[in-house]
Amino acid sequence: MKLQVTQENLARALTNVSRVANTRGTLPILANVLLKTVDNRLSIAATNLDIAITHYIGSKVSEEGSITVPAKLMQDFVGSLPNSVIDLKLDDYKLNISTDKYKSVINGVSAEDYPVMPAITDGKSWNIPAKVLKTSLQQVVIAASNDEARPVLTGVYIHSFEGSLFMVATDSYRLAEKRLMKTNEDINLLVPATALNDLLRILGDFGGDVGVFHDDQQVLFKVGDVELVTRLIEGAYPDYRKLIPSSFASSADLKRSDLTNITKVSSLFARESAGSVTIHLDAENSQVSIRSVASQLGENTSAATAKITNEGTITLNSRYILDALHALGGEDVIFAFNGKLEPTVLSDPKTDDYLHVIMPLKS
Amino acid sequence: MKLQVTQENLARALTNVSRVANTRGTLPILANVLLKTVDNRLSIAATNLDIAITHYIGSKVSEEGSITVPAKLMQDFVGSLPNSVIDLKLDDYKLNISTDKYKSVINGVSAEDYPVMPAITDGKSWNIPAKVLKTSLQQVVIAASNDEARPVLTGVYIHSFEGSLFMVATDSYRLAEKRLMKTNEDINLLVPATALNDLLRILGDFGGDVGVFHDDQQVLFKVGDVELVTRLIEGAYPDYRKLIPSSFASSADLKRSDLTNITKVSSLFARESAGSVTIHLDAENSQVSIRSVASQLGENTSAATAKITNEGTITLNSRYILDALHALGGEDVIFAFNGKLEPTVLSDPKTDDYLHVIMPLKS
Repeated sequence: MKLQVTQENLARALTNVSRVANTRGTLPILANVLLKTVDNRLSIAATNLDIAITHYIGSKVSEEGSITVPAKLMQDFVGSLPNSVIDLKLDDYKLNISTDKYKSVINGVSAEDYPVMPAITDGKSWNIPAKVLKTSLQQVVIAASNDEARPVLTGVYIHSFEGSLFMVATDSYRLAEKRLMKTNEDINLLVPATALNDLLRILGDFGGDVGVFHDDQQVLFKVGDVELVTRLIEGAYPDYRKLIPSSFASSADLKRSDLTNITKVSSLFARESAGSVTIHLDAENSQVSIRSVASQLGENTSAATAKITNEGTITLNSRYILDALHALGGEDVIFAFNGKLEPTVLSDPKTDDYLHVIMPLKS
Repeated sequence: MKLQVTQENLARALTNVSRVANTRGTLPILANVLLKTVDNRLSIAATNLDIAITHYIGSKVSEEGSITVPAKLMQDFVGSLPNSVIDLKLDDYKLNISTDKYKSVINGVSAEDYPVMPAITDGKSWNIPAKVLKTSLQQVVIAASNDEARPVLTGVYIHSFEGSLFMVATDSYRLAEKRLMKTNEDINLLVPATALNDLLRILGDFGGDVGVFHDDQQVLFKVGDVELVTRLIEGAYPDYRKLIPSSFASSADLKRSDLTNITKVSSLFARESAGSVTIHLDAENSQVSIRSVASQLGENTSAATAKITNEGTITLNSRYILDALHALGGEDVIFAFNGKLEPTVLSDPKTDDYLHVIMPLKS
């Protein structure tokens, strides 16, 4: 293997793929990145066996070849070099990396020992604008579970329903649902949230369309010169639609920043009680008030002006409220519920394509 | 106690003093801040028994009084409030904090239980421009030791010598010395580096003079409305001047950014060898080259153009070189030594008021 690449391209590719290389696993080669010439490009790839990321960069190839080298060292090293042309040359398993003033040798391991992700065959393919995908993921992924005991809830359910594409995630304490766009495809994917967090980083400011290819086992997202493949989660997603209330006994309409501020302040006094705060919709004074009590430290009541439709009181986890408010964006928020044992729904009065549901705490 | 302050002033004061409040100590009250009316001001103070910081802010006092409250909660709470007037009112040991929309009660502990730092009596006092003090501390504190086994080396030695004020710190592996200004005082202070790191944060962008007051046990730095008092370290500082070589067999004069870049790259291959890199002054090619070897991972040689006076080779800890280069500032650097068993001195060719000495490693 003998080739030239620019420092800028190689550094960017290493940053994108090194994230999934893992130094703590049982298989040492998974701490490496795979470098491989492909026509007149260099592919830089890494996998943790669940997720694989491959980045293709332009390259002047004089000799084909492939090798794996430690991801972290390679990333740090190339990242520290000045922006110039880098020569890569393989001697047996030693990768010589040189520029004008810097010469390094990194000891590699044969590319033949590196695991290969199975190819996607007989699958479907469709496109989605990167910006739509990014915004939607940011609004939904937050609600997925980290708890491997229920694998289905660690995924984001990307599916078609009545002619539209939806994304939903829930950890059973809260749920986020987004309607992305019209679709004629029949789509049914349960994608690990961890892979989608990696996808979010890769999306960055990419402005084009993202290609989505999938079969029963895997899905591939193609973002420009970067490909992310992840296995799908097996199992049936809960029938979540019946959990979302469609009418409400009490509701408040107020500035999102006001509700964020009073929730933040109140959460400071809710640290001993697992974030528990009590929200009161006060029709008489046209305000939402939040109260929290820390038995040792003290207590707090904060209020914000709101349009109230029917009084009501509910106890929620303040962290979930703050997550929901962050995900919502928008100027205003509608906060609505049916009595203190039913879920609360937060939504944007200006659009009906996103909602965030939070289960109540016992008060 | 009953008074009004602005959120902005109170939040800034709490940020300055809360740093020394400690929740992990054996004395629970040291996790609190002391609030106390003093004439028409509110003093906000905290101490860890070694260091005490007091910040005075303007206040409309209707009733004198004092109380201590948990520092972290108070800081987070006041920091989250909007910029407005805050009412503080004490009922027994309950501090009521309120603004237009926020009402909190924080449970306090009597101010009488809070430890008092002894006053400085019969001491000396002098002034120093804040900007000179700040720059000098930033250049010197880095070389102080963290190792409590040799308390003297955990301090910065601030002293007068031949009519000038000096600061010096050493952890016995490296040493930084700065000449600050002319002085007629006889000064001899060994100040804990931790206290000076706190002082650096307090100095911020303060543009005036800092007042320094000290007796045999303590020193007080007065920065505008903020006072920092710290105990002094007892013991005699090593006679360091005889350790600094005054002439050199080999030296290099090069761009500081060039030496920084090649040292950084080289340090990546020096992780297994405790940062050890070998620097060669190459007169024939007019360059400084740095070589590092990681037995498993590979090796690196990096070079930068330099004016060389006599060839030479020395092995140093790359982290100390990077610290020294960061502390030096300036466009260029002189890197000089006498054979591979003697200390290396880094200095700025444009000024003789600062030098940084690094002891060699065995190569």
